[in-house]
Amino acid sequence: MTRYATLAAILSQRIEQGLYPAGDRLPSVRMLSQEHGVSISTVQQAYRLLEESQLVEARPKSGYFVRARRPLAELPAVTRPVQRPVDISQWEQVLELIRNKPREDLIQLGRGMPDISEPTLKPLMKALGHTGRHGDLRSLHYDSIQGVVGLREQIARLLLDSGCQMDADQLVITTGCHEALSAGLRALCQPGDIVAVDSPCFHGTMQTLKGLGMRALEIPTDPLTGISLEALELALEQWPVKTILLTPNCNNPLGYIMPEARKKRLLTLAQRFDVTIIEDDVYGDIAYQYPRPRTIKSFDEDGRVLLCSSFSKTLAPGLRIGWIAPGRYLERVLHMKYIGTGSTATQPQLAIAEFIRHGHYLQHLRRMRARYQQNRDVMTGWIMKYFPPGTRVSQPRGGFMLWIELDEEFDTLRLNRHLEHQGVQIAVGSIFSASGKYRNCLRINYAYAPKLMPEIEQAVLRVGATIQQLMLTFESTLAQSD
Amino acid sequence: MTRYATLAAILSQRIEQGLYPAGDRLPSVRMLSQEHGVSISTVQQAYRLLEESQLVEARPKSGYFVRARRPLAELPAVTRPVQRPVDISQWEQVLELIRNKPREDLIQLGRGMPDISEPTLKPLMKALGHTGRHGDLRSLHYDSIQGVVGLREQIARLLLDSGCQMDADQLVITTGCHEALSAGLRALCQPGDIVAVDSPCFHGTMQTLKGLGMRALEIPTDPLTGISLEALELALEQWPVKTILLTPNCNNPLGYIMPEARKKRLLTLAQRFDVTIIEDDVYGDIAYQYPRPRTIKSFDEDGRVLLCSSFSKTLAPGLRIGWIAPGRYLERVLHMKYIGTGSTATQPQLAIAEFIRHGHYLQHLRRMRARYQQNRDVMTGWIMKYFPPGTRVSQPRGGFMLWIELDEEFDTLRLNRHLEHQGVQIAVGSIFSASGKYRNCLRINYAYAPKLMPEIEQAVLRVGATIQQLMLTFESTLAQSD
Repeated sequence: MTRYATLAAILSQRIEQGLYPAGDRLPSVRMLSQEHGVSISTVQQAYRLLEESQLVEARPKSGYFVRARRPLAELPAVTRPVQRPVDISQWEQVLELIRNKPREDLIQLGRGMPDISEPTLKPLMKALGHTGRHGDLRSLHYDSIQGVVGLREQIARLLLDSGCQMDADQLVITTGCHEALSAGLRALCQPGDIVAVDSPCFHGTMQTLKGLGMRALEIPTDPLTGISLEALELALEQWPVKTILLTPNCNNPLGYIMPEARKKRLLTLAQRFDVTIIEDDVYGDIAYQYPRPRTIKSFDEDGRVLLCSSFSKTLAPGLRIGWIAPGRYLERVLHMKYIGTGSTATQPQLAIAEFIRHGHYLQHLRRMRARYQQNRDVMTGWIMKYFPPGTRVSQPRGGFMLWIELDEEFDTLRLNRHLEHQGVQIAVGSIFSASGKYRNCLRINYAYAPKLMPEIEQAVLRVGATIQQLMLTFESTLAQSD
Repeated sequence: MTRYATLAAILSQRIEQGLYPAGDRLPSVRMLSQEHGVSISTVQQAYRLLEESQLVEARPKSGYFVRARRPLAELPAVTRPVQRPVDISQWEQVLELIRNKPREDLIQLGRGMPDISEPTLKPLMKALGHTGRHGDLRSLHYDSIQGVVGLREQIARLLLDSGCQMDADQLVITTGCHEALSAGLRALCQPGDIVAVDSPCFHGTMQTLKGLGMRALEIPTDPLTGISLEALELALEQWPVKTILLTPNCNNPLGYIMPEARKKRLLTLAQRFDVTIIEDDVYGDIAYQYPRPRTIKSFDEDGRVLLCSSFSKTLAPGLRIGWIAPGRYLERVLHMKYIGTGSTATQPQLAIAEFIRHGHYLQHLRRMRARYQQNRDVMTGWIMKYFPPGTRVSQPRGGFMLWIELDEEFDTLRLNRHLEHQGVQIAVGSIFSASGKYRNCLRINYAYAPKLMPEIEQAVLRVGATIQQLMLTFESTLAQSD
């Protein structure tokens, strides 16, 4: 982290802890410069960051003051999806989102891309470059269908932090979390089967269900505590649900972390109805809390939970390295993995194993957690500033996605078409629903390097302005038709 | 290629062309040494290689003579698989073959591994190492779901050699040929559907059908000309076949190249019955003939052929880069690719594109073609020397696999169990059949570097000896039970 970001983080923590109460004057620039041994301009940059995240305000000739408890944006409502299994639509909208390669002329606020510009990733680039030199041909070979054992050992060690005790033998390396989810689903379900999901739900999961001919049963979900256990229980009583697929930690797109007690209750429910659980933990390692939250898998005793994850969000998506801990379905998942892609690429596995072994992974996580948490506050501030009053915003506790709910009548598909001419793209809400709900919602990524933030602010401003403009047009159309 | 291998190739070609007829004395070692400007020992090594492939024989004090037209091993019989669609078994045997990672103590004659030790691969290693240095972060990004455009352009260029004219837009990069086949099948068929295949057929294809709940209809296949069109026509009349999946070029495991006229007739048949064709061309670039054979796809006019291939056999399997040209099913295949793995890893795509662009790919192919052709002759010689009389051997025209047919009663599963204690593994024939036929057959890889060949000869000798021994035990058991 840069010096000013570190300083901002320290001050922000003190404010959150109440050391500097609201309305109080903060230490002067000169005082902080002396206390922390940094330059005047570093302190000024730190204060600017805190201003942006609306924690402090500058008063001319008086200095910096703690702002009155920042009014949190109102949360999105608890969702109310269709209460029956449905076939999935929305493929065209997803394709629009993913078909583009990274483009210079388009700010893709909609994609699930982490910030890969931090220097803590450098040892990984080095490891990727190393592999294969000095006549080491391992990276060109097929490795075991389960994946490179050295990497599986490192992952097993990391899993301890989420409460899982597991051997390398119980893990299968996959081509990203996509393949983990897909192989898990194919191992458990047949076409026509019903899968219960949290709602909104990651569009990749939805499209996987669609592609495999399965039906989604969307369960109402609370933006702070996750999938409604009450609604889920009713659904399990009413429908022959085959498996429950959900993202309890740093949910995509809502950002919540399901409380531990609810995770346990969910597992008990799964046991009672004898269904399996596919747990997507792809953002779990970048929860803002320390230690990181436990997984449902960590409470699993009879191997009914299939834990899926990857390094796509914590390191870089272009590596395409994920994994699955398939519990008692290891053999079936191995078969599905074999027929999907064969072995996983060897080189990135070797490089990531080396990166973790030398302690670089945890160091990188620490930095990214702080960065994303800070960006969340900055981005939330911008949304409140540039979006129309009444806009509801999620309060993510990990990851780097903000879920934004607009007026019920608003259509984000239309918004996206207007934005494209302006070089901005957002993820429309409807792709997070099997039946095209959430058309009035959008998802925005806030994983950006500090130097990009001014450009991102401009993009958010344009999105906000376009929304306001479309709303006005809509109202005037209504007025005319009266 | 080493000097002696080059010289051996030149001499072998002259013999094949009849410049030195059978029984003739070949130029003396001294003469060749002067003619080609190489050392005496180089010529001696070249002659040793030609002796091993049974093209020449040394007569004491007289020199080297062209052998009487080498008696070709008898070909395996035309196959007679079950004449109805069957569910696929044999997963356990396949798992045994693929679960092992490369092991120092096991000679895996059974695997589909190319020789990756040639110096012509060095520029690829360099390209893999380059990527990501100098602050180039492209390799960490997601790229387009269709794959890196630079690589697709290079592949489109290469495809001209097989008679295909195609844009980069019509190609999708996949995680190995495995994903190409799997995505193709999922795009075209549903569980329960019938897929016609050549027989024997690549075990990966069989297991993909099994995993997707599809049924295989195995069509009799000729070891020289491929799938029987007459049998296929009968099958198409009798069964609701959804697609035909086959490997017409350098077939795995039989090694034949289907004659061009038959390829055209196959396509006409597919048009008449309005079925699609999935064409696996993964070994097509290492056919021993120049120019390489055409694909069925190259005759395709209405987009019903889905051409699948990869760099796993021509370059290295650990890269996991393949592709598919899905004809009129592009959109469906893209969906299946997205839900299977998401985007394909970026770094190896960039590296391979660079490797091809600089002409290294075609150079590498030239070398590997010559090497594999020579190895084929050496390996065939060993089989005839060490295996029991009556052993039938395929005559591959490309690739690096030999298909060996033993006495009808012989069980290669049992053979493999005996071999494992001796540090050798072969691919049992039964995994190449949906219903576990070909138990009396085995597949052997001959893609080995020259320096490994003495070790491989020892392994083949052990396989041969174990077969003879098991046959004796079997006969004596029969005698006892008389």
